[in-house]
Amino acid sequence: MTFPANRKGLDFFFYPETLAIVGVSTGPTAWSAGAMYFESLRLFGYQGRIYLVNRKGGDFNGMRLYPRLVDLPETPDLVLCCIAREFIPALMDECVAKGVKAVSIFTGGFSERTGNEGRRLEQEIVSRAKAGGVRVLGPNCLGPFCPEVRLSPGTEFPQGSGPIGFISQSGGNAINFIRASSQRGIRLNKGISFGNASDINESDLLEYMANDPGISIIVMYLEGVKDGRRFLQTLKEAVKKKPVAIFKGGVTEAGAGAAASHSGSLAGSGRVWDALCRQTGVVQVDSLEELIDSVVTFRFLPLLKGRRVGLVGMTGGATVQAADDCAEGGLVLPKLSRDIEDELRRHFNNDPGLILHNPIDESTHGFTDGIYWPLKIMQKADVDFLIVHIPMGMFLLPRAISEVTSLKVLVNDVVRMHQEGSMPMAVVISHTILPETRVAAIECQETLAAAGLPVYGSVSGAARAIDRFIRYYAWRVEV
Amino acid sequence: MTFPANRKGLDFFFYPETLAIVGVSTGPTAWSAGAMYFESLRLFGYQGRIYLVNRKGGDFNGMRLYPRLVDLPETPDLVLCCIAREFIPALMDECVAKGVKAVSIFTGGFSERTGNEGRRLEQEIVSRAKAGGVRVLGPNCLGPFCPEVRLSPGTEFPQGSGPIGFISQSGGNAINFIRASSQRGIRLNKGISFGNASDINESDLLEYMANDPGISIIVMYLEGVKDGRRFLQTLKEAVKKKPVAIFKGGVTEAGAGAAASHSGSLAGSGRVWDALCRQTGVVQVDSLEELIDSVVTFRFLPLLKGRRVGLVGMTGGATVQAADDCAEGGLVLPKLSRDIEDELRRHFNNDPGLILHNPIDESTHGFTDGIYWPLKIMQKADVDFLIVHIPMGMFLLPRAISEVTSLKVLVNDVVRMHQEGSMPMAVVISHTILPETRVAAIECQETLAAAGLPVYGSVSGAARAIDRFIRYYAWRVEV
Repeated sequence: MTFPANRKGLDFFFYPETLAIVGVSTGPTAWSAGAMYFESLRLFGYQGRIYLVNRKGGDFNGMRLYPRLVDLPETPDLVLCCIAREFIPALMDECVAKGVKAVSIFTGGFSERTGNEGRRLEQEIVSRAKAGGVRVLGPNCLGPFCPEVRLSPGTEFPQGSGPIGFISQSGGNAINFIRASSQRGIRLNKGISFGNASDINESDLLEYMANDPGISIIVMYLEGVKDGRRFLQTLKEAVKKKPVAIFKGGVTEAGAGAAASHSGSLAGSGRVWDALCRQTGVVQVDSLEELIDSVVTFRFLPLLKGRRVGLVGMTGGATVQAADDCAEGGLVLPKLSRDIEDELRRHFNNDPGLILHNPIDESTHGFTDGIYWPLKIMQKADVDFLIVHIPMGMFLLPRAISEVTSLKVLVNDVVRMHQEGSMPMAVVISHTILPETRVAAIECQETLAAAGLPVYGSVSGAARAIDRFIRYYAWRVEV
Repeated sequence: MTFPANRKGLDFFFYPETLAIVGVSTGPTAWSAGAMYFESLRLFGYQGRIYLVNRKGGDFNGMRLYPRLVDLPETPDLVLCCIAREFIPALMDECVAKGVKAVSIFTGGFSERTGNEGRRLEQEIVSRAKAGGVRVLGPNCLGPFCPEVRLSPGTEFPQGSGPIGFISQSGGNAINFIRASSQRGIRLNKGISFGNASDINESDLLEYMANDPGISIIVMYLEGVKDGRRFLQTLKEAVKKKPVAIFKGGVTEAGAGAAASHSGSLAGSGRVWDALCRQTGVVQVDSLEELIDSVVTFRFLPLLKGRRVGLVGMTGGATVQAADDCAEGGLVLPKLSRDIEDELRRHFNNDPGLILHNPIDESTHGFTDGIYWPLKIMQKADVDFLIVHIPMGMFLLPRAISEVTSLKVLVNDVVRMHQEGSMPMAVVISHTILPETRVAAIECQETLAAAGLPVYGSVSGAARAIDRFIRYYAWRVEV
């Protein structure tokens, strides 16, 4: 795409036409943030123009190193700052002088650190920037990700753009979320890691994404909230427009202490947070894994009429636990009608070793014969949706059939049924043990997601996420 | 080893010198339980003698097929029965006539099925067997596993023998447990899947393993209990001798319905089960994954003086969540002394981006420089044990260093410190996303376990398991 016209405010973080990386180390150090940004942008195919700044001058991988920001031949929209903290206040003056709109500061060692020096420096940076009309992201953050213009702070991120907005206080959690969710079909419209929130905070970003027409689902990882009243108000508005799922770190005293050291956050008590979530209709989750389960659900599961699930799985022990997991997750497993049960029984030639009245355990039949026909029969069941559970590593197969072969047959059958049928389906691939099965499971997740199916790593994760999905829409229609 | 002398009772299930598989199908069917047993025993190197029975006679893979059990040239200690249910009562008469001691029935379709025919047949089988002095395992079970004599019902199980006894009502869960726990260093002394418990039940097996000197930790997966009073009494005795960890399936109504169909179990209410566990000091867990976390802990973690943990990890967001997970799991994270903190700070050249007062986030330093020296410093900390957290997929590395390289360096450092130091350590490898990292993580788990270290897939799993471990020994010293 071309860069949008009439950019203003936070647009300059996501759609910079020109970008400067300040602090590209040329020494023999194994790891330089500036070099990493440069490499990531090049590999990802960033569509704007890049300039590199290093006070010593010279060149880096064929690119000229400008000694100072003010030496650049044009004004960068965005500056990615990787220099030592004590030099950053002066850099802000240069940014003001040059007319830069946006600065993202990777460097750490500010308000997240004990001692006053970091806090003082952070205030100094923000006050110089603000006085000159420059907006600051961070410090202590990874910065923006916008696949539309191929702006990426990291490698091994997916190239495509999707309808998800992701706001993360932590850079590491952002990296993990983007990579892990991509294997389950999630593509971001925009992502941002915002660190200490010295200037731009969670409310600014939430408001921006709530008003972004390219974003239909917002996902957040927070450690603290800068202005509780404003955040509550912003959240209330956002949640009426689109689902907002939040994982809050630092809910225990130990976690809050770590959060203070990580992003300088005052984490607040878990109880206050719970109360805030109940007031707003936000989708509250308890781990990064649950955040991914939730975004997958909102992205791929169609609206459901209710919480009555038909659970179709394989092997008895796994099916007993899956039924417990569904019930504990708030789902309901109604008994099947006699007609459906009889049809299933006939299909399986009256094999006595099966469970056929919801949950359904089709035992090894699934692994050897696939799952198309049982799912076809279940299309007629009086339930609101199906969970298809494929537990690997629970059975003994004839040596002619590998787990991988079996998994792929099952996944193809689910995709085929999804294309032909109308019953909403969620898929769980669990209990992967053998190395080759683990690798194949990743491919199969991608196949399922490409067909538009939500896929999970455990029945308990799926059940909890679907329960939250149902509760969000029940809340929304009442508002 | 040679088969033990003076075998009696259940010994014949685990140490059969001669074994007959009845019902080895020779047709073109893709899957035959009898053929699977035969193949597994051959591949695993079973040290006794095998006979095959098929009413049509002939031969199978070069082995003679005897038309009837009574035709065998000697009396098998154990019969593995895979024929259709209606022929089994007559087989029991043959077993009695031949002097067989033990029968394990794979065939399903008995008391776990609705309708009276299955229940009637099951009673008929047990009454004929008991009258003739034959003990029955199952029906609807996978049977015994005893690596000492290379008796195995499945492939891809580890060959070695260890101090664990595993009792599972489900065959699938047994398969999964054996395979998955083996990647974390667990080796069974004996395992058994017992299905419907028509004759031999959970109390018989628990009592047997409680008295087995080769077993120091007992692990169970149950769906129901046949005789509550006897089980309570047996459990009370067992738990005084060795830890017993139990995962109970069928704790919700939906799960109990599935359990009834899977193993004919009356699952009972979750509340009654909770009360029973509290009375006995049993280690109660809520999933198969937690059962594996528990057995790994009891197997590899040394006794702890208390629940004060030093948490050493990498990247901020992962460390905040890890601290929350430890606290929520019941562990305590004391602040480090000023001396230790200063020493860590000096080691990291005053890098301001780190968290260094428990939890410790050494950020990317760990991934590029390893973890030996921080762990060395932490040997002196005033905590009872360390959790070393290696979260993959949370960081951006220079392209010269792959995640796999980094993981292996970290794991080698942990092993080295474990050999040199005295502080108990638990290791978590989490957030594996890239396919090559997932495969390498399995290898690394095996390396850590071989060095005698407990290894987990999540900090929350580790914390919960270690809390249960501490509570078990606290309970035991009070009894």
